[in-house]
Parts: sequence; C-alpha cells; structure tokens
Amino acid sequence: MSAPKKVVLAYSGGLDTSIILKWLQTEYGCEVVTFTADLGQGEELEPARAKAELLGIKSENIFIEDVREEFVRDFVFPMFRANAIYEGQYLLGTSIARPLISKRLVEIAEMTGADAVAHGATGKGNDQVRFELAAYALNPEIKVIAPWREWDLTSRTRLLEFAEQHQIPVAKDKRGEAPFSVDANMLHTSSEGKVLEDPAEIAPEYVHQRTVNPEDAPDTPEFIEVGFEKGDAVSINGEALSPATVLETLNEYGRKHGIGRLDFVENRFVGMKSRGVYETPGGTILLEAHRGIEQITLDSGSGHLKDSLMPRYAELIYNGFWYSPEREMLQAAIDKSQEHVTGTVTLKLYKGSASTVARASDHSLYSEAHVTFEDDAGAYDQKDAAGFIQLNALRLKLLATRNRRFK
Amino acid sequence: MSAPKKVVLAYSGGLDTSIILKWLQTEYGCEVVTFTADLGQGEELEPARAKAELLGIKSENIFIEDVREEFVRDFVFPMFRANAIYEGQYLLGTSIARPLISKRLVEIAEMTGADAVAHGATGKGNDQVRFELAAYALNPEIKVIAPWREWDLTSRTRLLEFAEQHQIPVAKDKRGEAPFSVDANMLHTSSEGKVLEDPAEIAPEYVHQRTVNPEDAPDTPEFIEVGFEKGDAVSINGEALSPATVLETLNEYGRKHGIGRLDFVENRFVGMKSRGVYETPGGTILLEAHRGIEQITLDSGSGHLKDSLMPRYAELIYNGFWYSPEREMLQAAIDKSQEHVTGTVTLKLYKGSASTVARASDHSLYSEAHVTFEDDAGAYDQKDAAGFIQLNALRLKLLATRNRRFK
Amino acid sequence: MSAPKKVVLAYSGGLDTSIILKWLQTEYGCEVVTFTADLGQGEELEPARAKAELLGIKSENIFIEDVREEFVRDFVFPMFRANAIYEGQYLLGTSIARPLISKRLVEIAEMTGADAVAHGATGKGNDQVRFELAAYALNPEIKVIAPWREWDLTSRTRLLEFAEQHQIPVAKDKRGEAPFSVDANMLHTSSEGKVLEDPAEIAPEYVHQRTVNPEDAPDTPEFIEVGFEKGDAVSINGEALSPATVLETLNEYGRKHGIGRLDFVENRFVGMKSRGVYETPGGTILLEAHRGIEQITLDSGSGHLKDSLMPRYAELIYNGFWYSPEREMLQAAIDKSQEHVTGTVTLKLYKGSASTVARASDHSLYSEAHVTFEDDAGAYDQKDAAGFIQLNALRLKLLATRNRRFK
Amino acid sequence: MSAPKKVVLAYSGGLDTSIILKWLQTEYGCEVVTFTADLGQGEELEPARAKAELLGIKSENIFIEDVREEFVRDFVFPMFRANAIYEGQYLLGTSIARPLISKRLVEIAEMTGADAVAHGATGKGNDQVRFELAAYALNPEIKVIAPWREWDLTSRTRLLEFAEQHQIPVAKDKRGEAPFSVDANMLHTSSEGKVLEDPAEIAPEYVHQRTVNPEDAPDTPEFIEVGFEKGDAVSINGEALSPATVLETLNEYGRKHGIGRLDFVENRFVGMKSRGVYETPGGTILLEAHRGIEQITLDSGSGHLKDSLMPRYAELIYNGFWYSPEREMLQAAIDKSQEHVTGTVTLKLYKGSASTVARASDHSLYSEAHVTFEDDAGAYDQKDAAGFIQLNALRLKLLATRNRRFK
Repeated sequence: MSAPKKVVLAYSGGLDTSIILKWLQTEYGCEVVTFTADLGQGEELEPARAKAELLGIKSENIFIEDVREEFVRDFVFPMFRANAIYEGQYLLGTSIARPLISKRLVEIAEMTGADAVAHGATGKGNDQVRFELAAYALNPEIKVIAPWREWDLTSRTRLLEFAEQHQIPVAKDKRGEAPFSVDANMLHTSSEGKVLEDPAEIAPEYVHQRTVNPEDAPDTPEFIEVGFEKGDAVSINGEALSPATVLETLNEYGRKHGIGRLDFVENRFVGMKSRGVYETPGGTILLEAHRGIEQITLDSGSGHLKDSLMPRYAELIYNGFWYSPEREMLQAAIDKSQEHVTGTVTLKLYKGSASTVARASDHSLYSEAHVTFEDDAGAYDQKDAAGFIQLNALRLKLLATRNRRFK
Repeated sequence: MSAPKKVVLAYSGGLDTSIILKWLQTEYGCEVVTFTADLGQGEELEPARAKAELLGIKSENIFIEDVREEFVRDFVFPMFRANAIYEGQYLLGTSIARPLISKRLVEIAEMTGADAVAHGATGKGNDQVRFELAAYALNPEIKVIAPWREWDLTSRTRLLEFAEQHQIPVAKDKRGEAPFSVDANMLHTSSEGKVLEDPAEIAPEYVHQRTVNPEDAPDTPEFIEVGFEKGDAVSINGEALSPATVLETLNEYGRKHGIGRLDFVENRFVGMKSRGVYETPGGTILLEAHRGIEQITLDSGSGHLKDSLMPRYAELIYNGFWYSPEREMLQAAIDKSQEHVTGTVTLKLYKGSASTVARASDHSLYSEAHVTFEDDAGAYDQKDAAGFIQLNALRLKLLATRNRRFK
Repeated sequence: MSAPKKVVLAYSGGLDTSIILKWLQTEYGCEVVTFTADLGQGEELEPARAKAELLGIKSENIFIEDVREEFVRDFVFPMFRANAIYEGQYLLGTSIARPLISKRLVEIAEMTGADAVAHGATGKGNDQVRFELAAYALNPEIKVIAPWREWDLTSRTRLLEFAEQHQIPVAKDKRGEAPFSVDANMLHTSSEGKVLEDPAEIAPEYVHQRTVNPEDAPDTPEFIEVGFEKGDAVSINGEALSPATVLETLNEYGRKHGIGRLDFVENRFVGMKSRGVYETPGGTILLEAHRGIEQITLDSGSGHLKDSLMPRYAELIYNGFWYSPEREMLQAAIDKSQEHVTGTVTLKLYKGSASTVARASDHSLYSEAHVTFEDDAGAYDQKDAAGFIQLNALRLKLLATRNRRFK
Repeated sequence: MSAPKKVVLAYSGGLDTSIILKWLQTEYGCEVVTFTADLGQGEELEPARAKAELLGIKSENIFIEDVREEFVRDFVFPMFRANAIYEGQYLLGTSIARPLISKRLVEIAEMTGADAVAHGATGKGNDQVRFELAAYALNPEIKVIAPWREWDLTSRTRLLEFAEQHQIPVAKDKRGEAPFSVDANMLHTSSEGKVLEDPAEIAPEYVHQRTVNPEDAPDTPEFIEVGFEKGDAVSINGEALSPATVLETLNEYGRKHGIGRLDFVENRFVGMKSRGVYETPGGTILLEAHRGIEQITLDSGSGHLKDSLMPRYAELIYNGFWYSPEREMLQAAIDKSQEHVTGTVTLKLYKGSASTVARASDHSLYSEAHVTFEDDAGAYDQKDAAGFIQLNALRLKLLATRNRRFK
C-alpha cells in the first residue's frame, strides 16, 4: 500500500483519536479530514470542532453530522425486523453502528478527494473488521489506516508522551487509565476490559451508565403501547414519532426501569472470547414489542423461516458484513415478511423486564373463531386432525416397522 | 380401524378422563387399563387409583408411576442442551412431556396385551398430534383413540349428563366451567382458553399458579450458583442433586422471585394461532444458566451451529416429532457439542429476572491472555488482523468493482 | 361442506377427467365449467372442446388456454433461479405446474361465479395437495372437490361401467389399463406406477417418451451457447427467444441427446415413498447452464446462502406451498442474488450429459489478475494469508489447548 | 515465531518440495524430516527416499507410508455419507486429503521431537489453509512453515537457479513450465492454472489424466452393483472389498467410461475465484450409488435434514475445518442417519454418466402396499388426505382472508 495523501478520520474529539489525528499528520505527512458523527452517544459534538481546529485541521475539512435518524431508520430498524440476536443474547448495538460510520467516511473521502480513511479500533477487536469491510465494499480502491495495528504507541505511557510531545491537550481525568472501555450510541452502551476481564467476577455496579439498577427502579410497573407499521415502531402511547425519537423515548423508559442490561461472554470474529457489559434499554423493549406484534400478524411459515435465518443474519452483522450481498438477500426475505406487521403492543415495564401483555392489529391472523373452546360454528372440523395425524405418522410407522426387523 | 379390545388410557383421575374411561367401556365394550403419571404436576396421584377402581378398573390394570426423574433426565435435560425455544420465547413445557406419556402408554399396552391407547386431548390442539405421533413411532400397530374427536359430547352440559348417567362423581367445583384450561408438569404450567382468548386483553393475575407476581417477590436479589456437567445441571450452590431435584429446586427459586412468566400467542401445528400464559420458573433459570456456562465453554463454531439448528429442533419437539430420526440426528449433534459444557454459573434472581452475572470453568475457552487490553506477551499478533481483513474483503472488493461498472 | 353449485374442473379431455365431469354433474347436480391448459404437454387441445360439448358443457363454460409463456416466465424460471432440486436429484417438473393450474381454476371460478373447483388427482399423491393448497391460498372461500377421494369408482372395471352407463366414449386403447401413468408438461414427463412399482426392477426402455436412449443419441457432441439475463435464459446460440421458446428449444436439444432421464425413488409429502421415471430434457440443460453462469457472476456469500436455502425452497414447491409467504420470502432473497447473473455459457451435449465447458460475462467476478500462477503485479499479497489463517486458527488452538487438559 | 529447530516436511520427491527441503536447511539451518504419503496418487514413492537421502536427510528421518485405507475409511467415506458437494458440483477431492496429511505431519513431529511442520502450498490457494488449520487444531504449539509465503523464489527462473546452486537434480521435462498444475490422490485429480486460466476457453483434452474422453468410452453400457453397509460401500458385484479397494475398483470403472469430469469455476476460501478441471471417476459413481441406496432406506425427515446440513458441511471441508467441533457435530448427525443405509444399488455406466437404475434393501422403507395404484387392502385411507390438506391449508386460508382486507 502506497502512503496515503489525504485521510478521513473517524474522530470523536477524545484523546485517543486526537493522538491518531496527529500521528497521521506526522507519520504520513498527509492532510487529515475529520468526521464526527452524532449517533446518539450522548456527548456534545461541537468541542470536537474546536479540538480539530487546534490540531491544525482546516475548517472545510471538519465534518460534524447528526446521523441519528439515518442510523435508526436505515440500520437499527431493518435489523430489528429480523429480531436479530447474536449468540442468543446480544442485540448488536456496536456492530450496527460501524457500517454507517464507514459509509460516511467513504462518502466524505469521495467528496473531499481523500484516498484513505482511518479509524481508532484496535487490532484485537471486531470493530476494525466492521469498519474496513464496509469501507472496501463501498469503495474497493480506498485505503484504510488502522493506527493501532501499525504504531508503536503500545502503552498508556507512550501514548501520553506522544500527546505531550505534540501539544495535544490531555484532560486531567484521562491521565490515569479508565477502569474499563466504553462504546456508546443511541442503541446501546458497551463496556469491556480491565475490571471486567475476569468473567468469574461480578461486574461492579458503576460500570452501568445507561440504566438504573433494577433494584432502584420504580416499585410500580408502567404500561406503554408501541405502534408498528410494516415491522417498524412508529408510535408510543398513540403519539406518532420519527425513528430516532421512538428509540430515544424507549431508551428513556428503559433507563428508568433498569431494562436491557446484559453481562455477556461472546465469541469475537477474530477468534477469541471477550466479556462485556451491554446496556440496550430501548432496544430491549423494541425487540420484545416487535415479537409481540409478530405473534399475531405473522404466520408460522414466515415466522419459522425468519427464526431459522436469524442466527446467520446476526452473525453477518456482528462480523461486519452489513454491505454484503448475502445480508442484502436475507434483508429482502425479512422485509418481504413484514408487509403486514402492523398494529399495537402493550408492554409491562418493571424492574429490569419488558413483557408483552397484550397486542392488537387489524392485520391479525389470530382467529378466535378457530381456537375457541366453545362451539366454533364449523370453523374447524376436528375430524380433519385424524387425517392430518395419520399422514404425518405414516413415515414414522414405516420406520418403526423397518427398525423392528433389525432389533 | 377395527374396534379396540383393550385400551390403555392416560388417566388423570379428573372428571374429563373419567368420562373418557366410561365412554371407552360403553362405546367399545373394551377393557380399560389406566396410566397415571407423576410428572411433577403437583397433584396427589393416589385418588386416581380409588376413582379408577370405582369406575370398575381391575387393580392389576391400574398403573400409577412416578416418572419425574426419567422426565427430567431423558427429556427435559436433552432439550435444554439445545437451548430450545419455540418461536423466540416458549420453553416447550407441554410439548416435552407428551412423548414420555406415550412411551409409557405403549409399553404398558405391550405389557398388558392391550391393542390400543387413548388420550384426552382435543382435536384442535397440538397434544393429540404429540401423543399419537409418539405412539405410532414406538408401535406402528397400536390403535390410538381420541374420544374428543369421535364422540358427540360436545358441550359441558352433555358431558355432565353423561357423567350423571354413568354414576361418575362430579366435584362441586367442576359443575361450572373453569375460566381457563390448565396443563402442568414439573417444567411448567400452561393456561389457555376462555378468559385468555382475546390476545388484546391483559391476562388476569389469578391465571398464574406457579409463580408469585414479580411485584410481590422479595425486594432483595438472591444469588445462586448452578453447576453443570456435560451440559446438564448437576448441583445448586455446591450441593449435588438428581435431575428432578435440580429442577424442583430451581422451580422453588423461580416461584419465589416471580421468574418465568410468559404471555404468548403461538402458531399451533394444526394451523391456528392460540394464546397462552406459561409459567416455567425453574426452566427459565436453567436456560439462562446453560447459556451462561456455554458462553465460556463452547467455541463459536459449535455455538453458531447450535444456534442455527435450534429453531428446527424446537419445532420438531413442538410438533410432536420427538421420536423421529431427524430429532435424533440433531440430538446427536447437540450432545456432541456438550462434552466440555462443565462448570458453574452465578445467577442473580430478582423480581421476574434471572441473569448470569459470573461463570467459571476448568473447561473455559476464555483466554484473558488473548483478550487483555494490557500487554499480551505475544499471545496475539495484531498485524495478523490486517491479513484476515484483506482476505475477507477480497470478494467484497471484487463485487464493488464489478457493480460500479453497471451503475 | 355444503354441496357445490358450479364447479370449474381441470379437464384434459381424457377418459378419467371426462368421467369426473359426468360424476360431478350426476353426484352434485351442479353446473360444470371446464378448464384445459396448454402447458406444453404436447397434446392437441381442441378435441377437449368437442368432448366437453358432447358431455353437455355450454360453450361459454369451456376454457381452453395456451399458458406456456406464463408457465415458463412466472413459474419455471423463478424456480430455476434457485437451482431447485428435490432430494438431490428431481427437478420438480410436476410440482411447478400445479399452482398455475389452480390459479387459473380459481380465476375462472371467480369470473364465472363458480363456488368450487375440481381436479383429477388421487388421494395418495402429492398433486391433490398442490392443487388444493394453491386454491385455498388464492381463495379461502373456494370449495375443492377431489372425486378420487370421494367416489366408489375404485377399480378400472367400475370406471368403465360408469363411462358406459353415461355414454362417455372410451377409446379402444383405453379399455385395457396403461402399464404406467404419465404426467407431462413443457418442463418434463413423469411416469410412475404399474411396471415401475418395484424399485429393484430396471425400468423398461418404452417408459421413456421425451428423450432418445443415450445409446441412440448422436455419436458426436454438440456445443450450444445459452445467454442469461438476471438469472433467466434469454437466448440460444445468440438468438433472443421468449421464455417458452427457450425451453422448447432446449427440450429439442435434450431430446436428441438423451439428456435428463432420472430413475428415482422419492418421499411424497403424504408420507410414502414412490418410484418414478422423469424426463426433463431442457430443464436439465438449463440447470447446468444456470450453474455455469452463476460460477462467474455470483460471489461466494450469495452462492453459499442460496445453496443453503435451496433444499427448503425445493421442499416448499414439492409440497405444494408455492403460494405461501415463506416461498415468497425465499424468492425475494433468490431474486435479489440474480441481478448480475448475466452472460453466456457454452455447453457440451453428448449421450445423456450436458456439461458446462466455458462461460463469459461482462459481470464476471473472476479475476485472472488475482488467481494467476504468474506474477500478479501486487493484486494479492500472499502474506495476508498468514494473518487470515492465524485468526481462523485461533479458536481451534484454544480448543486444542483446552481439550488436551482433559485427555 | 522463533526459528524452527526440526521440521517435518510434506515431501513428494518432486522438484518443488525438494527445493523447499533444501531451503528449510539453508534458511533455518534446521533438521528436516520428510513425510511422503501414498494417497493413491499413482506415483512411485520409493524414489522420494533416494532423493531425500541425496539431499542429506538421515534415513531415520524419512517417512514413507501407504495411507490409502485410512484415507478412504476415515476421510472419504464419512464425507460421502453426507453426499457432500461444494457449490453444487465439486466433490472435494483435494480438500479431503489435506487433513490426513497434516495429521501424520503432526504425529511424526511429536514422534521425532520436531517443533515445526512445512508444506508446499502457495499463499493464494486453499491448501495452505487446510494444512495449517488441521495442524493447529491437532497441536496448538506446532509451528507451520509455508515457504511459498516467505521466500523470494517467486519466478521459475529463480527456483531453477536455487536448485542448481544447491545441486538439486532437475528432470529435463521440469525445466520448462508445465502448462497446468496438478494435484492427485485416490479420490480425484485436479488441474488448474496456465492453459486453464481463462474460464471462457474450453479446456484442452490433454488436461484430463484420469478418465478417457466419453467419446472414446465403450459404446455399450456396463451395469455394476454396489453394496452398502451403514452408508459405506462394502462390495462391488457381490465381492466384499476393503474401503480403498472399493474406491480403486470404482475408479477403474469410472476411468473406462469417462465418468466424473468437471470443468468448474469455484470460490476459494481466500476470496478469489479459480477455474479447475476435476476428474473424480470412482467418487462420482459412489455419490450416485449412495444416493440410490438412501432413496429407499432413508425417510424424508432424515433425508431433508441431511440435505439442508450438507452445504455447510461441504463448506467446512472445503475451507479446511475438518478438525473442528462443528464438523464433528454435523458428522455425528449424519452418521446417526446412516444406521440403516444398507443394501445394493445397480448403476448403468455409459459414456460419462453413472445412473442408478435399481436398488434393493432389507432395510427398505419403500412400501409397494402403500403406493400401489391397485387396491391397497386398506394400507392407506385416501380420506385421511382431506384432513391433512385442510390443516395444512388452514394458515394459508387465514392469510388469504387477512390479505384480502388490505388489497
């Protein structure tokens, strides 16, 4: 790979990406463009502008954008249509944000004539893979620079020395090492490393940042109603809301009731296991609600097919293959199934749990006429079941007859 | 089908199966053998003996058995090795009990020279299918009689008339109709019908029988430790327990903390949707614990394959295909994966939730040396990730290059 | 089911469906509408009109249609996009024709105010299921009449008596029983029953009707070029052709070279095994050609996902679930994959075999630059493979280290 | 990676691996152990001994072994139980041999106290991955040396210079470059590269080495009978044969009749497409025969599950994951299905094709009594089909009713 001439950096304004910014300038002597995205991580973005300017970035090279609506509409919602869960429990909060960041990095590179993009993910994690696969899928000519895999700033001390040496301001509270590492966006906050590294140790309460401890949540349950249209949440308690506002509102409910905490050991794509604490307050409610509305609007054929495709779909997102033809194929199948996933779900929120307690829909497939214990006026002929069972049993009988001969 | 001469009836001792008993005698003039199983449903069994005798069953034709250990060891545990969940949420508590009952019915039929078995499941539900597929798979010559599909006792009034006419004692509280219908065994209690028939109505609290309302559960969390060996729970808080005792103990913890309630609309195999309220206190804890121990003892290859097979496996059990070659194939694969699923999991139980908070195992695949944010002493070379990403990206780049030509 | 008033019958003009026609009139006293479709089965259709009139059908109630283009375009081609094969070998020639017939039956019923449709499939086969599931999926109110499951004309003798009794003309060669039963359409001819009933007996040569014996095929191979656009065959040897004409042309090539014979024992949906001889001359060539073009235009992600979905897709078609949401979901995924499946394939046809020998496409993903044994000018860095392997090996190493501890 | 001290080299005795041998000695100054395996590739092995000695290998460090029976029994046969095919057509002949070679390399390393193994696969192909994943899975401490990824002998000229410089004898016919590259073992011969690099060019006839051109094959078909036990071929024409002898015999039949040629473009695990010509004469017959016997001995539940697992299984073998827990899980499922796959299959071999024409088994599930067009004496009640269809249709009717409301 020849040296980059102009690089678009995913820039948070924090110490680590500021060091990367400076390192790109000094190591490659290249022009740096910064991209700072509001994904709902709950931080002010404007300080990133001042900091970038301080580090010598030209103002036309500083991009700060609010991508929250796009994030929820084009990434979070399609994923939730699939009820995607990785390894039985993880809602993919980090995984789903990476492709959007890469997409904007590549677009800004094309706009500004940059030949490379750079990110601050380490060489041990999944995020490097997600950033880079997405970038290459969108622009096969782009260069991707991953300083953590290249440089020799391999200890906290050396990083701080580099910062000092290059006049990068270091906040006092960043001089020591954080007791764990955090990633956040509107969908979730993940914490890992350091105090969490022993999976046999219970995570300290202070690790949690997005949710109250269920023990401190209200002692009375709260009931909310989530409205869906074609598989996407569109209203809460009857009020129509934009995608991002839906998720923000659910986040607030989840935070308050201590919903969506997960202590988890997962398998990274790069081959090792890691332990994290995830908080996905709104997403956890949304998944439960989506399942609730699917219960009455999806038939078993669609539902079972979706269930069988889901693990592969979730794995693709986790592994960074959002922009892959197979993810798009699965998405086409999933979206096809959502045409009638429209209606409302009532959920009970209480001390860490979100539970569907009622659901209603004009598109419902539930037929009280068929299922009733009462007289069903001929909707269903119980005698049909005899034939149904006989033909389902036929091969089992033939097997049993055969197998008896060889006992 | 020629008329049966001797029938083994799955007999609970309750009104409905007593009516069936008498109906078999009068309709077919055949000898009836009763089989009453203790599956941990929490009812006295001996009254069933007295009642059967009263209805004219010879004492050598009355079989009352405690099958709880067999139930948990040979049915519940194998199923939990798979983390089986039907349609995203249901733990299959009713489904998994049916094959065991059919197995004993068929065995008793062979022992007593009976040519038929009979059950009390209706023509609208899944249980008829489960009973009958299992029976035919175990004995292809057996006749199965399902009175609810045959007789004309299609209303409560006619049932009671038949009972009166044949001197079947009717308990006072059975004269009226129950507000919902119940099935119970050691794994769960399910309630459906009547007051639950409208899925848009919140289920009344009195439907729940096996768990306290989370709101009434203790205000302080309780922590327990579940020990596993080869995928099966073998101890609680360090005390070795038999399969049934493990489940009973977890049930007691679950009951106390309001764990395992599910309000659910599902797709029956016979083609309609139904709504049920399930309570699976111990099973819910067990599933969470099993996942917890798999997190550190199963690698991603096994885990992801298991996840992708699970929906099919769960569907087979739900649909009544426990005794099918494909369920046995899947079981062989799943059991193969459990050889090292050994260790302990710590769970927090609190107001409706069971959450893994720590896990430890001599068989752990978690490598702190690899994952650490600190210096890993060469366990992992971050530069390897660059090649890993490049080769994973290669096809995406080729795709992007191709697709650009056709934009 | 109340008695039908007006029935649309799938009518071939042959003896069996003529008997059904008359039986519907006499049994139900209902008006009969006949629908005769040209699916490319290679029979004159107009005689069916005369026969229907002779049997008293009003001319406005006689529908004779050429549906060949629709058949290939909307049924055969979508199925071939999936490379659908049932149980490893069967190309689904009968299965794929049934939904189209049912669709037209239901449409004609709606047009003519009929309340029922009828078909001539027996109660042992798959076709009854396919006809009826399609009909119900398209019109949930329609009645379906399956005379073979209802009447008592259960022997050849009684059928002929009924024909005689009702003045149905019986061709001389139909007085005896055919040595096997045949179904044909443009995609294939299937033969089963009678002389084929013992799967240990080699099928007599005279069973084959659509293909010459490979031993009698030309001694010189013939090469043809099939052109594809978005997964569908659109030209042969450079000449653009309509869907039906493509298939007819391939059929002629296949017939001449003895291609597409299959002697097969399959599992019917109704639970039994049956043995059939299939001839799918053009379809066999088409499948090979489609695979050939996918080899260079589909990436591994799409291709492997397609392969893994295919068995389920084929089973759905075989079992009669063409008009089901899950088939449509799979179709959406498959069609999504075909956007660049465009190009040409050269096939060698010789004595029973069709083999891809060359393929070319502007949409090709094949990169000689990457794969070459010669100097690749930096297209591919072999050192990347080391990192790729290390990270793929990491979990295997951790497993091996763990497993060694327990030997 | 520290420098290896003693290396076990997969040594063919050919020029390339002789150069590697010498390079390992000169580059690392390490002791070299050679392992030469007879996998049925059809070459004399003893010359490899002389050549190794000539290159200075001590006689106790030269391992020459006939592993043909192990290869077929423990690798080829388990794979054929699965009917494994990669990307619809490739029988995995190269892929399945690599794990066995790695297994012996690692075992010999442990026996001789070597700390490394080495292979002659390039950095562009799949074989490096297969060799190395297998080695690491069997011994996580082993070093693997892949000279083609390390050295600078990147052209034919430099290789020959190195050979000359180190007194490695070069056969005259090796001075020029071969027009394509070959890998062979008892299961297949693969050819790729050079004259085959353009997939739009028809492969020259001289590329084929293991099969006669179908046009030159006998003009009369030949019929053979293959006997199976539990899924493995155990006899031909009634004569019991060892695993390797079965395959050799089938190879001879296949060679003679021109069976098993495949011109194929496949997706390599490392991300690029490549084109190869494969000849798998005996394997192609074996696959057809195995399917033939499964047709009558496997029920649909097992068969369809096997079909759906197969693509994943084949991908695992292709990608080098033979020694992975997920392959072993799938194998456990597949082997479970083969318990009754016992019987005989008659095949017709003719000019490139092997076709099942008859099959017989004491374990057959085929029931003429059920399938017959004649009177079946009550084996099957056609009326059962009505109920079967009604319940299968129920959800489709409910869907249709629902969907009509939204048109």
